[in-house]
Amino acid sequence: MNEYIKNGNRVTLSELSLPEDLKKLSVQQCWYLCGEIRNMLINTVSKTGGHLASNLGVVELTMSIHRNFNSPDDKIVWDVGHQAYVHKILTGRADMLSTLRQENGLSGFPKPEESPHDTFISGHSSTSLSVACGIAEAMRIQGKENYTVAVIGDGAMTGGMVYEAMNNCCYLQSNMIVILNDNNMSISKSVGSLEKYLTTLRNSEEYLDTKRRVEKNLAQIPVVGNKVAKSVKQVKDVIKSTILEKTLFEDMGFIYLGPIDGHNLRELEQAMRMAKSFHKPVFVHVKTIKGKGYLPAEKNPGEYHGISKFDIRTGNPEVSAGDSYSTAFGKELVNLAKKDDRICAITAAMKYGTGLQYFGREIPERLYDVGIAEQHAVTFAGGLASMGQIPVFAVYSTFLQRAYDQLIHDIAIGGLHLVLGIDRAGIVGEDGETHQGMFDVPMLTSIPNTVIYSPSSYNELKHCLKNAIYDEKGLVAVRYPRGAEEVSFHINTEYSEYMFVKNNKSDTLIISYGRIFNEVYKAQSLLSADGISCDLLKLTKIFPIADNLIHEIMQYKHIVFFEESTENGSISEKIGSLLMESCYRGSYSRVSVNGFIKQSSVKSALDKFGLTCDKIADYIRIRSIENGKA
Amino acid sequence: MNEYIKNGNRVTLSELSLPEDLKKLSVQQCWYLCGEIRNMLINTVSKTGGHLASNLGVVELTMSIHRNFNSPDDKIVWDVGHQAYVHKILTGRADMLSTLRQENGLSGFPKPEESPHDTFISGHSSTSLSVACGIAEAMRIQGKENYTVAVIGDGAMTGGMVYEAMNNCCYLQSNMIVILNDNNMSISKSVGSLEKYLTTLRNSEEYLDTKRRVEKNLAQIPVVGNKVAKSVKQVKDVIKSTILEKTLFEDMGFIYLGPIDGHNLRELEQAMRMAKSFHKPVFVHVKTIKGKGYLPAEKNPGEYHGISKFDIRTGNPEVSAGDSYSTAFGKELVNLAKKDDRICAITAAMKYGTGLQYFGREIPERLYDVGIAEQHAVTFAGGLASMGQIPVFAVYSTFLQRAYDQLIHDIAIGGLHLVLGIDRAGIVGEDGETHQGMFDVPMLTSIPNTVIYSPSSYNELKHCLKNAIYDEKGLVAVRYPRGAEEVSFHINTEYSEYMFVKNNKSDTLIISYGRIFNEVYKAQSLLSADGISCDLLKLTKIFPIADNLIHEIMQYKHIVFFEESTENGSISEKIGSLLMESCYRGSYSRVSVNGFIKQSSVKSALDKFGLTCDKIADYIRIRSIENGKA
Repeated sequence: MNEYIKNGNRVTLSELSLPEDLKKLSVQQCWYLCGEIRNMLINTVSKTGGHLASNLGVVELTMSIHRNFNSPDDKIVWDVGHQAYVHKILTGRADMLSTLRQENGLSGFPKPEESPHDTFISGHSSTSLSVACGIAEAMRIQGKENYTVAVIGDGAMTGGMVYEAMNNCCYLQSNMIVILNDNNMSISKSVGSLEKYLTTLRNSEEYLDTKRRVEKNLAQIPVVGNKVAKSVKQVKDVIKSTILEKTLFEDMGFIYLGPIDGHNLRELEQAMRMAKSFHKPVFVHVKTIKGKGYLPAEKNPGEYHGISKFDIRTGNPEVSAGDSYSTAFGKELVNLAKKDDRICAITAAMKYGTGLQYFGREIPERLYDVGIAEQHAVTFAGGLASMGQIPVFAVYSTFLQRAYDQLIHDIAIGGLHLVLGIDRAGIVGEDGETHQGMFDVPMLTSIPNTVIYSPSSYNELKHCLKNAIYDEKGLVAVRYPRGAEEVSFHINTEYSEYMFVKNNKSDTLIISYGRIFNEVYKAQSLLSADGISCDLLKLTKIFPIADNLIHEIMQYKHIVFFEESTENGSISEKIGSLLMESCYRGSYSRVSVNGFIKQSSVKSALDKFGLTCDKIADYIRIRSIENGKA
Repeated sequence: MNEYIKNGNRVTLSELSLPEDLKKLSVQQCWYLCGEIRNMLINTVSKTGGHLASNLGVVELTMSIHRNFNSPDDKIVWDVGHQAYVHKILTGRADMLSTLRQENGLSGFPKPEESPHDTFISGHSSTSLSVACGIAEAMRIQGKENYTVAVIGDGAMTGGMVYEAMNNCCYLQSNMIVILNDNNMSISKSVGSLEKYLTTLRNSEEYLDTKRRVEKNLAQIPVVGNKVAKSVKQVKDVIKSTILEKTLFEDMGFIYLGPIDGHNLRELEQAMRMAKSFHKPVFVHVKTIKGKGYLPAEKNPGEYHGISKFDIRTGNPEVSAGDSYSTAFGKELVNLAKKDDRICAITAAMKYGTGLQYFGREIPERLYDVGIAEQHAVTFAGGLASMGQIPVFAVYSTFLQRAYDQLIHDIAIGGLHLVLGIDRAGIVGEDGETHQGMFDVPMLTSIPNTVIYSPSSYNELKHCLKNAIYDEKGLVAVRYPRGAEEVSFHINTEYSEYMFVKNNKSDTLIISYGRIFNEVYKAQSLLSADGISCDLLKLTKIFPIADNLIHEIMQYKHIVFFEESTENGSISEKIGSLLMESCYRGSYSRVSVNGFIKQSSVKSALDKFGLTCDKIADYIRIRSIENGKA
């Protein structure tokens, strides 16, 4: 454990008052502290899982920010907050780091309820400039003279919101500083022309110096003869009007500083001080190395982006990726696309997360990684579809929210055929509120003519994907959860849109879909052991609801629907209303999710909302007693 | 009527085979044709209403595009398609122009089902680059060598999708040409740093020429002495690496051509030919004058953006703006904001459309026009709210779809207080499918803890707005329709969240909200005259549904809900499910909207969906007979 000098005394990290005491440390001591923080990060994330490489890259940058700004009066806004672990350590939460991403523990993202230093929630990308612009304007209205600092990675720079915000904040001349943490990659290898542009800037000499040198040299060009003098003057004028406003960020209205070495504390601090002096929109371009200080992560930062537990010495993740709905989807899509060159695969910077790496390996010419740009992804798919291609957009449920309008306006109104592979549909666990896949069902069902499949196994996923591509028209979604299948049911059937599992003479029907069917199936056994008989209905094509389905289920006296979706706009709500409109006279109840779901294991969250087999069995037991009384 | 030479014969516009014959006309004849088109536009829009100024500005540009590309093999994608009237005329639809924006007539936007020359639907802004990128990629896959051309206005350039698309299409090196129709204003006065930047470009000399001149002049600088030689070389190097990649669009990866005079056919055609020669992403910057050729529109293009019928000679719109829900909202917001400097108003390029011009006049320092950037608008509001301001975002229902994720991620999860003034909620009429306000109810109700008000009169709107600002927390929406209130009911009550209008001993209850209540109220009288007695329930705070409400309405034997919203995820669906879950044993039915709604008058659309007083009365009469039988 390192020691630091505070008021002349030697103290440990946990005895420092953070972030204030950072300002009192010498640069030498800051270096020690950076080392200690890196060890802490590696040790912790090896046990808890989480985002390692990005945080190793911002140790010096984060320290420099906290040494030069006064949080929480100055507001620091972290974009895609998973780069904020160092910030958490440096604002007094080092002792809690071991609880990272666990139930009731530290969030993996900034969370205002956790600390006054966490300015704004940020699990989704590209929001920080908009937030900072709002905060800077509020400060202006309130007569406050504090700073607002947005810290954004180069990956997040591809999101359209950033551009909308640049356009607005520079117009307003907001007192805000944007720090670009440029590690030359977003989650994995970066894509897009902006990245190419940033790379050019990264590799340029320090920009401010270049400008000065040119101006000096210009002054030295001799003026010989009239014609030449005119030429020289023209050149000088052009240079003044161009070079002096050169970068894209200056074109958008920022003062641009950089590129700065993000691991050189002195250089960083000089840039921070300069940035503070303008009181206008300033863009500070900082070069960092993702995974800095931990060799396995430096060598392969993509693998250490969001990871499970791993062995520190070997660098090997404890749990191998293995099979998952994502890989099952990715592999089947390759199978289909090999035989049909109309099929194109699209991802918004989530090639690995969505299992599209197989597609990239086998059919790279029809795989499109558009960057963190879900809006463009959907409308781009619309363009492809309008020409007879069959685009398949693989996307996390939570990120698809970004493209609601495009799904309506650029796909559904025109009746274009787009297949959505919706990954991480349902509860995702440790990432918490910002990442839960809770809204795709209400979102998609609200759009006329949409079809939704929700398979309960890999095998069904393959069937559904094939149906979605070949048997359906228009907007079709296949949604599946994070992780691996759990299949305790062994029902030997052909694929069907829905399926009853019947006992003899049961008057109770339990409806479900997706992975919850497995829980319901197990609950049926538990109940059977108690002498309670239930029939099951598993929906696979969950929307639109088949015409004859309502009449079939109306044969039961009691119907209960268990659904892993937010309650409003869910399938169980639609079935409820359809039963009412059909004058059903039995009892109907439903168990779904209400509110936002905090971080915890998936199992714990499902349990909390009554969606595990035990809770399902309990619920039916109680209903059964009530129905007996009634 | 002008005459044109075709195969040596004199023919009229309607005898030309368009767009092919355009290529055979001399430039002189094209000028005549431009004049004829302008007259046609002014005459038609003066009768039908629609978008005049933007179309007057693109007459030469559109002609030049069709002379240099082969539609429909080459694909022309119009961004915010309301600038496509000239395109419609030049692709053989001149004779139908008088049916513009009417039921079963020509759409005010491009519509593939209308013509093979209409590549893609576009009512919302900033989609064209994404669409074109998709089309260009499909052509690549299919081995086609045609061109894809996106035509986008400077206003639409502020939408984040454009930036996402630039990043992607330049990375892909797609064979596509982007034509920026820069008329220096979006819908009204433009805002944002990008606009400032474009203005700088507009006012520069022709850019390609500047480059050439500089290079020539550089060659003329004499090299005198060693030290100077080094300086000159450095200057030259810097100029090469900077000036030759100067504009923001070149930074993003485009070849940039411009600025071009958009009313000079020869200059336009030269640029088109050059653009075609690259087979890479090319950006052609064309300067146009909005309203060109019609003085009232040139002088005041904002007023002639989207207009009602007007008198050609005076230029006066026949129908004055007058009172509307928008102005009632705008005026009340000023009243409240004058007394409370926490209140900030936000618009996404719709200051006039949303009634915020009053706010702009009285409290300009707290009005934010962020450009066509709904995503940024919401997250910017989140930043303001996190600092204790009270942001009010006035936005059309259909455009709010762009910000679904931001409402969830940047407002609702953090419990921040944002008030939405949702204008054009419900059916909007002539703009058709792309502009109907049909999805805000399912969209917002899916988000936990959201509150929605739907007033039925100006007076209620004021109450609701005040409640939303002061009595509620979190995300609160006040939604109201396009146009003026129609209030035939005179119910003298205090404001309340819901209200029953009771007859004696009626066993039928009709529920509704918003402007449909007025229809229901009139239907009640019609039915009463037939001896059919109904009670009414008007919801004003429509969500969440009050706890005791279900129990109150369960007293009725028959319940019917009339709702101006898409059916899935609507309030009537939620009430249906709640009744079912509460074991209601009466009859329940609901009338709402299914599918996308085509252009027509609002009245006609309401009638089609059974939401006018006559249709409502008919529906109840039939139910009443059925119930009598049952």
